[in-house]
Amino acid sequence: MKLRLGSTLTLLCLLLGGPALAEEGLRDKAKGLFAPIPQTAPGAPGETTPEKIALGKMLFFDPRLSENQDLSCSLCHNPSLAGVSGQFLSSGRHGELGGRNVLTIFNAVFNGSQYWDGRAAGLKEQVEASVMSSPAALLKTRGGPMAVPAATTASAKQHVIERLKTIPGYVDAFKKAFPDAADPVNYDNVARAIAQFEATLITPDALFDRWLKGDDAALSPAQVQGLTLFIGKGCGGCHNGVNLGGSGYARFGVAQSPSVELLPPDDWGRAAVTKKVEDKYAFKVPNLRNVELTAPYFHSGATDDLKEAVAVMASTQLGVTLAPDEIASIEAFLKSLTGRPPQIVLPVLPPNPPRAQAHSAN
Amino acid sequence: MKLRLGSTLTLLCLLLGGPALAEEGLRDKAKGLFAPIPQTAPGAPGETTPEKIALGKMLFFDPRLSENQDLSCSLCHNPSLAGVSGQFLSSGRHGELGGRNVLTIFNAVFNGSQYWDGRAAGLKEQVEASVMSSPAALLKTRGGPMAVPAATTASAKQHVIERLKTIPGYVDAFKKAFPDAADPVNYDNVARAIAQFEATLITPDALFDRWLKGDDAALSPAQVQGLTLFIGKGCGGCHNGVNLGGSGYARFGVAQSPSVELLPPDDWGRAAVTKKVEDKYAFKVPNLRNVELTAPYFHSGATDDLKEAVAVMASTQLGVTLAPDEIASIEAFLKSLTGRPPQIVLPVLPPNPPRAQAHSAN
Repeated sequence: MKLRLGSTLTLLCLLLGGPALAEEGLRDKAKGLFAPIPQTAPGAPGETTPEKIALGKMLFFDPRLSENQDLSCSLCHNPSLAGVSGQFLSSGRHGELGGRNVLTIFNAVFNGSQYWDGRAAGLKEQVEASVMSSPAALLKTRGGPMAVPAATTASAKQHVIERLKTIPGYVDAFKKAFPDAADPVNYDNVARAIAQFEATLITPDALFDRWLKGDDAALSPAQVQGLTLFIGKGCGGCHNGVNLGGSGYARFGVAQSPSVELLPPDDWGRAAVTKKVEDKYAFKVPNLRNVELTAPYFHSGATDDLKEAVAVMASTQLGVTLAPDEIASIEAFLKSLTGRPPQIVLPVLPPNPPRAQAHSAN
Repeated sequence: MKLRLGSTLTLLCLLLGGPALAEEGLRDKAKGLFAPIPQTAPGAPGETTPEKIALGKMLFFDPRLSENQDLSCSLCHNPSLAGVSGQFLSSGRHGELGGRNVLTIFNAVFNGSQYWDGRAAGLKEQVEASVMSSPAALLKTRGGPMAVPAATTASAKQHVIERLKTIPGYVDAFKKAFPDAADPVNYDNVARAIAQFEATLITPDALFDRWLKGDDAALSPAQVQGLTLFIGKGCGGCHNGVNLGGSGYARFGVAQSPSVELLPPDDWGRAAVTKKVEDKYAFKVPNLRNVELTAPYFHSGATDDLKEAVAVMASTQLGVTLAPDEIASIEAFLKSLTGRPPQIVLPVLPPNPPRAQAHSAN
């Protein structure tokens, strides 16, 4: 079955022997593990509307969602930089650094969960938590402590909503996006709208996807070799699906312990969510789509060299020491995962009303 | 001459008496003071090219021009917010606040000088100074002092250029933008390219511009009344030209001293540039284009209420106390200065190379 003898071309190649047959077998294996990014973003049926996406785009780019009105989602999940900040760790509120390297928002809709520890099930939950988290938060007065007392979250959410309610352009946009809601400007709808916009940020047409769909010429021989190794060495055991990752969890250091730079001992990863000792140092298997553009790597952001990241994964997760040419081939394959970035026209954000006027209303 | 008796329509109106004649006289006065924003951006002949604009757009949105790779031009001059930050004062490096309210980059190409104190002649000089200034700077190691010793500026510029030179996508883009340069990645070309992009950020087709061009219906009666007052009370004496300001200087408090909130005594304005005592508390007359969207107002950012700003200007600069209905009319007129914002597709920024690789090069 895997030989597809019915195909004249394949038969010819079979008679001639050689790479085409091998490639066809490889493609079948690959199709069992991976799938192309679809051409259009998968919206939730009955949920996604152009009005929700338009509102979500405004909110995604709006610094007024942050305490000091200087941070927006787009700052750390920068669509100009493949959905990441490019920083080792990202600056949040008052320049404080986040605790883990930022994950790309591109194709995040295809992930099984969000964050390195999977604490958010979907994009909506990720938005809810990220706006409220510190950094990128709206929580306390300037100069307050960084950690977020849970008791203040409700009032911080209220603060976001009160601010949005003073902006007539937002009130209109929420009404259009949620026409059936009696009081559409609420935190749940903020998260819902941003998630709808984020779900549009997909990158189809990677060379690997063209190859998966049958275009033999899309991958170079080195990339085909890299894919063969990626599957053969076991990388595809965790990095699979549409996103080549983004869903399951793995302990960082299954086969061999990483250095403390790569795995800082005080970050227990998934265990902080599940409270299970067996999840200590487990992290979500990251999405490898556009990985050549999403450096630095690992939850610790400890390297920005993709070759080094490949070598580390092989040794720590698979107990394999890769030869330099094997690393180069796998890196070449990983570069075939770079897709077409979404074209985003910057939104025009609704202006603030005068503060005095807003205060004197009611 | 002002009556344009040759126009049949005007003649008809003249025979009927009334507002159209008055409007025609007003239009002639207005044409003597103001001019519409052109439909296309004025590039420097022989200087502006699509490649320079494309490079400048990338640099404008790139946080890697800042020391900690977390600030870009677009953060304070946010094209989604009419070219301003919307903040009282804007956060720069390490969250430090800038000393004056940010001026819009929209239509700044039509200003006679840049900054509140006019210390930059044109956009290129403004870019050169802003990237090097603190905030929004690249100057010293983290935690260094905020003030910028002049001696470090050369090395800070070198730092920007060295960083850009490690990014292959930028090296290519500079070569395309400056094909005749032997070593195109230099600080002068960074500023030149950003200035070329910024010069495209114009907002034509304001209601006032349509009215100036002859469309009587473009302004409401209140706006016509506001324009009449704007000229009659003397506002147009300083706020004139294409940008209704943006060129000359005026002492804040010619007729009556403003409060210390509006005019903090330690900011001497233009005098810091000219070193002339007569320029103490003189500031550039700001551009009023899109003024309803560029709150807060004044160099101090001390009010975000346009009505209050109008009243303050009348009393401090003209010695006039405006009645509430006069203020309302002038505000209505000012809202007719809101133009069509530029449509900006977010650039895709070139990725960083691995640091190790960049370090091992040379």
